[in-house]
Amino acid sequence: MKQLWHHCHAVTLAGGRYGIVRDAALIIDAGRIAWIGTEAQLDRDADFDEVRDLGGRWLTPGLIDCHTHLVFGGDRSNEFEQRLEGVSYSEIAKQGGGIVSSVRATREASFDELLASAEKRAKVLLREGVTTLEVKSGYGLDLESERKMLQVARALGERLPVEVLTTCLAAHALPPEYRERSDEYIDLVCEEILPKLAKEGLVDAVDGFCEGIAFSVEQMRRVFETAKQLGLPLKLHAEQLSHLGGCQLAAEFGALSADHVEYADKTDARAMAQSSTAAVLLPGAFLTLRETQLPPIAAFREQGVTMALASDLNPGTSPVLSLRLMMNLGCTLFRLTPEETLAGVTINAAKALGIDATHGSLEVGKWADAVVWDITGPAELSYWLGGQLPVKVFKAGKELEA
Amino acid sequence: MKQLWHHCHAVTLAGGRYGIVRDAALIIDAGRIAWIGTEAQLDRDADFDEVRDLGGRWLTPGLIDCHTHLVFGGDRSNEFEQRLEGVSYSEIAKQGGGIVSSVRATREASFDELLASAEKRAKVLLREGVTTLEVKSGYGLDLESERKMLQVARALGERLPVEVLTTCLAAHALPPEYRERSDEYIDLVCEEILPKLAKEGLVDAVDGFCEGIAFSVEQMRRVFETAKQLGLPLKLHAEQLSHLGGCQLAAEFGALSADHVEYADKTDARAMAQSSTAAVLLPGAFLTLRETQLPPIAAFREQGVTMALASDLNPGTSPVLSLRLMMNLGCTLFRLTPEETLAGVTINAAKALGIDATHGSLEVGKWADAVVWDITGPAELSYWLGGQLPVKVFKAGKELEA
Ligand SMILES: [Zn+2]
Ligand SMILES: [Zn+2]
Repeated sequence: MKQLWHHCHAVTLAGGRYGIVRDAALIIDAGRIAWIGTEAQLDRDADFDEVRDLGGRWLTPGLIDCHTHLVFGGDRSNEFEQRLEGVSYSEIAKQGGGIVSSVRATREASFDELLASAEKRAKVLLREGVTTLEVKSGYGLDLESERKMLQVARALGERLPVEVLTTCLAAHALPPEYRERSDEYIDLVCEEILPKLAKEGLVDAVDGFCEGIAFSVEQMRRVFETAKQLGLPLKLHAEQLSHLGGCQLAAEFGALSADHVEYADKTDARAMAQSSTAAVLLPGAFLTLRETQLPPIAAFREQGVTMALASDLNPGTSPVLSLRLMMNLGCTLFRLTPEETLAGVTINAAKALGIDATHGSLEVGKWADAVVWDITGPAELSYWLGGQLPVKVFKAGKELEA
Repeated sequence: MKQLWHHCHAVTLAGGRYGIVRDAALIIDAGRIAWIGTEAQLDRDADFDEVRDLGGRWLTPGLIDCHTHLVFGGDRSNEFEQRLEGVSYSEIAKQGGGIVSSVRATREASFDELLASAEKRAKVLLREGVTTLEVKSGYGLDLESERKMLQVARALGERLPVEVLTTCLAAHALPPEYRERSDEYIDLVCEEILPKLAKEGLVDAVDGFCEGIAFSVEQMRRVFETAKQLGLPLKLHAEQLSHLGGCQLAAEFGALSADHVEYADKTDARAMAQSSTAAVLLPGAFLTLRETQLPPIAAFREQGVTMALASDLNPGTSPVLSLRLMMNLGCTLFRLTPEETLAGVTINAAKALGIDATHGSLEVGKWADAVVWDITGPAELSYWLGGQLPVKVFKAGKELEA
């Protein structure tokens, strides 16, 4: 099917810049962009199966949320409330709170329960213009439960008009049954969980949490070596709470991205630039944790590190249901420009997922994933705190139902 | 018309606490709450014109946004972008940026233009559960333009299913034509703007900006004396950027609220408690301005000062389109509890507007303004950053169309 979209201003994100085409027209063929230019350049004699007048509005690529923990059992709003009411961390931990409570709830939840709650959250993201979504495992922490999480993520992509990329984050935290045996848990991850789930086609990428409270650089190196042997791309939660060396490891292995990276430095930025490892910035977690250490934005800019921006949607440190809100926080907290934040949730997010050849910008050959916005210019997407601004969302040329 | 609402859990906010009634039922008569209790206590033989099954969900009072500058011309997203791109404040000011640009755009806009843009923003707030809204003037700064703003605010209340309370904020900023003649501008406010607009029935309350960059305590005292003679309740932007004495003035005059109040102290808290002056906390502006001085929450709690929470929706320092987001920021930035933030956007917001006899809680005699939420408990309202959680919104017993 061949469509003409016209009467709009396109923010193409070609080359990572706004790349605005005023009075734009796009030809969509079989779900992909076949042509883009100005209305004046359009071949008026061409035939189309469908012509869509976009009402003079602004059009951007579909948003890409490249870092989420969207599948989980339970929620932790009660813990959030207890902390604010003065209950201490140790008391909450004694009650079984923290990440352990999400692990327990996720293990106990059935596939259908997990899918239902994840689908609800995913729909909220979709209505705000997200057309591609990464989903991590990491609250299962055993073969069966990690499999269940990744199967739910795959099912989401089948049920909803969104593309889902799965990331196996078995090396997220030490499961309670492996207390003080973290190397043995890494054995399990490398010898059983990763190889089996990869073979089952459930794993698009491999991730880990490299931090004092999680796994060491040496442990993550083992996970990365395993993933490399399996031919899987890599990502890493790195330098979130301290400077441990995760960014260097990610760069050494040519990882797609290093995420959080508040404690990264110039040397890390240089290494990441050389290995084309994107920095995925997560202002929702930064805000929620009341972090004050800012990621080294100036060094990333200077070195030309790709900067993406994501929700980090998770029940503990980033209960975020809006990717666009991350654009505002990226500006306000990290002093990114609106152009950088829009690139961060489109073309740069695609790079952080390794899908920038087909996603993330309005360019010929790419999927016609796009959002029509009720705005007067792209800066408004970062300017407003809250609000529901999309008018239409398209996935591969097909309009989403409201 | 007599309705039964049942099969829900009611968060009544009676006495400023959650006041949860599980398995609740409410009888609504002519738009007001005639009875509330448990389903078991309900008189089964009563006749109703309409019975609504709320599906086992949570019900709260309708949200009240008690501090907004929702009516304005233009927007300032371009200025937001320029600042982040490194353009200096003085350069932006030279280009006519800052509040002056909103004043210019508001003066130039027609009534219909102002109404159309304000209606769009108000609808976004309504869809998130706001049933009562305060709207300030203050970008007109002359009789005609202040009148136009307040007329737009009144028109909003007529066109949309929301109650609008108007506040005359003529003492918001010095208009450019009064440069270095601020006392003369205060003459104009006191001798012409306030008396005329009050006589026209356009003013429900009077507000001012007491700050080094705006008006002094002595100037605000003159405005307050005028308002008092006109029989109008008072509000004040106080102690936002420095400790100037606005809270004491507000308390002395028995003002409904002192707003922002980051630089208020214990003595201010004591005075406000004695005069029943509410503190209206505005975390959107706090975040946007990257303020670090926290309002004296502990002192407010200790003294029993009513704490409300509002969007401060304005084009410069708080481009906020979500009151519920302020609940999350109230928790994260100000360490309020979820119970305090919910009280802050319901019963305490009603107090800050002087309408708590009829609004702000699910109690007999009050208007049946209520929101049905897709949550597992009230803490979720503060927990999630973003997302669209209301299932239904009722204004005076009538369901809003989606
Ligand atoms: Zn994460
Ligand atoms: Zn204000």
